[in-house]
Amino acid sequence: VKNRQVILRNAVPGRPRPEDFALAETTAPEPADGEVLVQTLYLSLDPYMGSAIKGRHMSGAVAPGEVMPGETIGRVVRSRHAAYREGDLVASRNGWQEYAVASAPDPLQHGLAAAVARVATPLAADPRVPLTAYLGALGSPGLTAYAGLLTCIDPKPGENVVTSAATGAVGSTLGQIARNMGARAVGLAGSAAKCAHAVQHLGFAACVNYKEPGWTERLAAACPGGVHGYSDNSGGAVLEGVVGCLAMGGRIMLIGLMDQYNTSERLPGPGLGPFIGKRARITGFVVYDHRHRLAEWRRIGAQWIAEGRLRFHEERIPDLAAAPAAFARLMAGETMGKLIVAVGGE
Amino acid sequence: VKNRQVILRNAVPGRPRPEDFALAETTAPEPADGEVLVQTLYLSLDPYMGSAIKGRHMSGAVAPGEVMPGETIGRVVRSRHAAYREGDLVASRNGWQEYAVASAPDPLQHGLAAAVARVATPLAADPRVPLTAYLGALGSPGLTAYAGLLTCIDPKPGENVVTSAATGAVGSTLGQIARNMGARAVGLAGSAAKCAHAVQHLGFAACVNYKEPGWTERLAAACPGGVHGYSDNSGGAVLEGVVGCLAMGGRIMLIGLMDQYNTSERLPGPGLGPFIGKRARITGFVVYDHRHRLAEWRRIGAQWIAEGRLRFHEERIPDLAAAPAAFARLMAGETMGKLIVAVGGE
Repeated sequence: VKNRQVILRNAVPGRPRPEDFALAETTAPEPADGEVLVQTLYLSLDPYMGSAIKGRHMSGAVAPGEVMPGETIGRVVRSRHAAYREGDLVASRNGWQEYAVASAPDPLQHGLAAAVARVATPLAADPRVPLTAYLGALGSPGLTAYAGLLTCIDPKPGENVVTSAATGAVGSTLGQIARNMGARAVGLAGSAAKCAHAVQHLGFAACVNYKEPGWTERLAAACPGGVHGYSDNSGGAVLEGVVGCLAMGGRIMLIGLMDQYNTSERLPGPGLGPFIGKRARITGFVVYDHRHRLAEWRRIGAQWIAEGRLRFHEERIPDLAAAPAAFARLMAGETMGKLIVAVGGE
Repeated sequence: VKNRQVILRNAVPGRPRPEDFALAETTAPEPADGEVLVQTLYLSLDPYMGSAIKGRHMSGAVAPGEVMPGETIGRVVRSRHAAYREGDLVASRNGWQEYAVASAPDPLQHGLAAAVARVATPLAADPRVPLTAYLGALGSPGLTAYAGLLTCIDPKPGENVVTSAATGAVGSTLGQIARNMGARAVGLAGSAAKCAHAVQHLGFAACVNYKEPGWTERLAAACPGGVHGYSDNSGGAVLEGVVGCLAMGGRIMLIGLMDQYNTSERLPGPGLGPFIGKRARITGFVVYDHRHRLAEWRRIGAQWIAEGRLRFHEERIPDLAAAPAAFARLMAGETMGKLIVAVGGE
């Protein structure tokens, strides 16, 4: 069987461009004993991949010539493992390709190893929820929002919880969880259209366009009493601006460094004066540490989706060949919602 | 009665020099009804004063011509308050002068207001403890160490707890508390003599001179398994270096920005990459929030002092006129231990 792939063509010092990637074709591998062959149905495109192609992400570096990594939902098409049958739906990490072999999850594996290893996890899909949600609101981005909000921010009712990238996969979920827990969700996004979407479709109390001059004043006005919780994926100017709006005892959760993913430089952090003045805290968060809570989150999140209390927006990329251009738009901040590549099979 | 004072002479854009201050002489004020006149016995010199004279400290700005503020131990020499008699020992905030009036503490005042207001708090001195300890190990610096260590770092037995300014009033106390709680105390200090003092006199497991090239490698070697807790008063290059040595789940407590106290600039913070990689946390700490724990800390600390398990080093400045030069040395990192000005009366 033919296996179409997208490989990294060259090193990417700045913002990724479509021409930094190349289509390749090979033959689908044969599963060894204890392995399964998984056909990719849906591939998730995520900002961390911009860090991985610069060799800086903890999930591993991607070298030129290698297949791009990525989380996928797929179907077992050949099984040499007793626990899997052909047709089973699995979550795996096939990457940007049509087929990959995977092993069964080892219950002794935890955290990072289990998260990035080539394992196929049986997917017990909820019929009320579209399959692609398991890559977004009910996948790693959603678990980032849920576990991060609870452990790093711990919002109290009435508090202002702000998120960067409010229409992104993590931010849109985090804001709605905060709101469902009784906090006020306030978004930051990079266009008027995204802000309108966050308020009208996702139910944020307010959303501020951080590309407009004076945005920090508008954020302060949107957060009476200051910013109590903030989820940041920028690590740069947006973070610096929000730090200036912190409430006493503000808690910041740092989940990504988008401002550094598109550059070879490592940037300094925000000035620390407000952290003392506001007795504030910043905590680095890695979703791999919290995979044991995925089932818990999926139960809660699926119920909320069924009730209409957790909404999400997807941009569906119709073909693997279009993934590089979509990824370039993602890293330029030009997309809205979760990017899903419909690789095939359905 | 004559009242000698030290006033700020001019704005101080850089590191303070003795000539930025001037001696003045006035007449001791008369206490109004409900007030007491307090004669200063001992004055504490502390790094935060370097921030106050730049107008940046939360205890208030000091303008040219004003008396320098500061914590003091004194004696009531005239009382117009029923709860005080002449001869009573009090902790107050007389500043850099021989006499000041103060009111009785208002039990409704809390936190910052009570901490910086002109109030005289009765001092129940422990006979096993020298009076000056109530400005250092058992005063605000000691409470910073105790409450900060417990709330921001929460050390576990065997963990490596690092402190900047290891021979300073906060750092020396913090390291010994951490050690008494079963952690390993590792110091950072700016000279070989200070490092020797920290190990030999204060009982640190190790101390690294951060002014020598390669100090971060030596710190890493002194902290097998990484830095689990770190108390920082630099906010600059020392912090950046320690961040590179963090253990997984490392906790940093930020109590000062010494690197900015001597400059008009506000500096950026450390790069944030390691905070994600190490799931680390940095928390700003203000001792004024924790004054309700002062009595608790004084009970514990006095017992440790009596048992020889909490040691401290003081440099005694013999006269108020010598305070500016001593303060300049403090802000240049050239002093060791707690600076106490013996203002008079004993």
